[in-house]
Amino acid sequence: MEVSHRISHITGGGSDGWDVFYKARRMIAQGVGVTELTIGEHDIRTSPAILAAMHNAAMGGHTGYAAVPGTPTLRETVARRITARTGVPTTAANILITPGGQAALFAAHLATCNAGDTAVYIDPYYATYPGTIRGAGAVPKAIVTTPDTAFQPRADTLMQMTKGAASLLVNTPNNPTGIVYATETLDAIARACITNDLWLISDEVYETQVWEGNHFSPRSLPGMAERTLVVGSMSKSHAMTGSRVGWVCGPENVINQMINLATHTTYGVPGFIQDAAEFALKQGDNVEIEVAAPFRRRRDLTLQALSRQNIVRAVPAQGAMYVMLDLRATGLSGEAFANALLDAEHIAVMPGESFGAAAAGHVRVAMTIADDQYVDALNRLIRFASGLAAQ
Amino acid sequence: MEVSHRISHITGGGSDGWDVFYKARRMIAQGVGVTELTIGEHDIRTSPAILAAMHNAAMGGHTGYAAVPGTPTLRETVARRITARTGVPTTAANILITPGGQAALFAAHLATCNAGDTAVYIDPYYATYPGTIRGAGAVPKAIVTTPDTAFQPRADTLMQMTKGAASLLVNTPNNPTGIVYATETLDAIARACITNDLWLISDEVYETQVWEGNHFSPRSLPGMAERTLVVGSMSKSHAMTGSRVGWVCGPENVINQMINLATHTTYGVPGFIQDAAEFALKQGDNVEIEVAAPFRRRRDLTLQALSRQNIVRAVPAQGAMYVMLDLRATGLSGEAFANALLDAEHIAVMPGESFGAAAAGHVRVAMTIADDQYVDALNRLIRFASGLAAQ
Repeated sequence: MEVSHRISHITGGGSDGWDVFYKARRMIAQGVGVTELTIGEHDIRTSPAILAAMHNAAMGGHTGYAAVPGTPTLRETVARRITARTGVPTTAANILITPGGQAALFAAHLATCNAGDTAVYIDPYYATYPGTIRGAGAVPKAIVTTPDTAFQPRADTLMQMTKGAASLLVNTPNNPTGIVYATETLDAIARACITNDLWLISDEVYETQVWEGNHFSPRSLPGMAERTLVVGSMSKSHAMTGSRVGWVCGPENVINQMINLATHTTYGVPGFIQDAAEFALKQGDNVEIEVAAPFRRRRDLTLQALSRQNIVRAVPAQGAMYVMLDLRATGLSGEAFANALLDAEHIAVMPGESFGAAAAGHVRVAMTIADDQYVDALNRLIRFASGLAAQ
Repeated sequence: MEVSHRISHITGGGSDGWDVFYKARRMIAQGVGVTELTIGEHDIRTSPAILAAMHNAAMGGHTGYAAVPGTPTLRETVARRITARTGVPTTAANILITPGGQAALFAAHLATCNAGDTAVYIDPYYATYPGTIRGAGAVPKAIVTTPDTAFQPRADTLMQMTKGAASLLVNTPNNPTGIVYATETLDAIARACITNDLWLISDEVYETQVWEGNHFSPRSLPGMAERTLVVGSMSKSHAMTGSRVGWVCGPENVINQMINLATHTTYGVPGFIQDAAEFALKQGDNVEIEVAAPFRRRRDLTLQALSRQNIVRAVPAQGAMYVMLDLRATGLSGEAFANALLDAEHIAVMPGESFGAAAAGHVRVAMTIADDQYVDALNRLIRFASGLAAQ
């Protein structure tokens, strides 16, 4: 029996650059001590206060079908937060609660792309992007950026590559690069979307993790609120990765139709999880700053460690829980370096190639272990790279 | 900005027959006492023991990303249950855990249908079926059944209507009819799928609610395991509707590809919810019998109440939490009857037309309120129908 083309081709075939990750997991399973700097997951758990709110909601009886668009109070809470942070008037009617940011990304593409439409994304990219587009029946098209623009797309390229496309997917703060898009980049994105009449899908799940300047949502730019779907999530901001709760923020008429879609694809999000998310958001900014603090601290530690040498260079680490390291001075590909580092030092990092062609010769380091262990691992990585470069 | 054809057309346009439902909800919001017999939701909540298991898992740290296919132990538990109940050897590799049965239905259609493929379903149908098929980019095609076969599809119709289709979706025990498909019907379904080489998507979420005979999964029939995707859920069996946890059971190679799909559409199910589901399943059959017991009891009460008259006739109520009443003797459509009943008696039931053309002249009654209130409402419905018929 044949499965649909959609799912048999969703990963696009070929190596996906995750071999190092799985090799590390196998080593761990065999009892080898491996320092994992691979996955974007906090080294803290969801806070007991949030879990208590969840349990109270469940014991209080919020265990039946929740409203498919999300509970009115969570939608309202998310809307108020977005209004406060972006200045764009936003109401509950602009919000669809989804079972996580990935579901929001998928729904946004289903909502904006017809079968066979071109959906543009920026390379390097979060691993699921092209498959999400393919899963929605659209055709992924990458804008390949370069290290010399700190992996930000150029205005002329954006304008040219989005011609005839249905949607453009951007992500700032960016996974994997840790780059926060400059004002000029965001302006160029808006111009391209307006000129070429396409949807912007803005993945802002790292919005609370910005180390330089502030997060700026391109939905705030003139003419963009009507053509932007913002993807948000509780995963990174509140260490609720496993709770699978996120949202899409967009024009009311589109959200209304996406609610219809949700009725047929997920039938909503557990009410007790939504209540926990609402509780978490209502704790205020300090909770989010606290959850982000370790990454800010480790980013500073990263810059300190790198400052003493010239072999390993950091892509400007401005946001998100990752730092992207340029290892081209070693002469190795990101994948070869990551493999060699895992074998020699038992440190697992993600090859840049896992995130697209643009990040070749780089590795992504997730700053997701305790500070002292993190600095130790980073110093060993630097020494290892320096040894290779000296050969 | 235009949204995709897929989402703008997902509901198929026209009245969806849910006007009565929303009218009842408006009356309730205005303070009118309405007896609701509309939605398939238990009058009990998820049990505190299950919620305690969930909270313990969360407090124990199972709050990070869970394995996308589902936790190995939940997959194993579901597989063992299916093996025990169907006799078909089933392992964890045959199981994908999904965020609810609706997500499983959608994923099953994404996995089996290419864009434009024909996906067949049986009318009357659970309200989301045609939209789920449209959402997956396929073209819905209904086999319209008739009351004289108790809404079971005929063998010749099945064979003829599934020619050239990619999939056939069936649901037994059936929502909305309460019918459990006969052995001959299941055999005819299998013959049509094998002869016409299509996938069977078997929605078995009511499998624990069978009042006559036993549930029989068509995956058990010769040659069917390789072409069947079974949709299961904790919602109905364990009163966990709001937890959004279900599964697809199918051939290992398809499940592997559906795991890729899940990575791009949902990124898995909360680990603490999966642990709660595993706990619930391990409580054994008695818990499931207990959750189903009120519906069995009320089904018997329904038959008693109906036995004293000849105006309102029940479609044979063999399973699920609904009874479908034939009101054609009143001369009204299901929709007109439901509207009149709501106005006169403040009792809300679903018009048969909400579930497709086949159920015209019927209403679906959800047996989801306390026994004495249920019997009272049913007697008032019968008196009301008798009054109409006498006019």
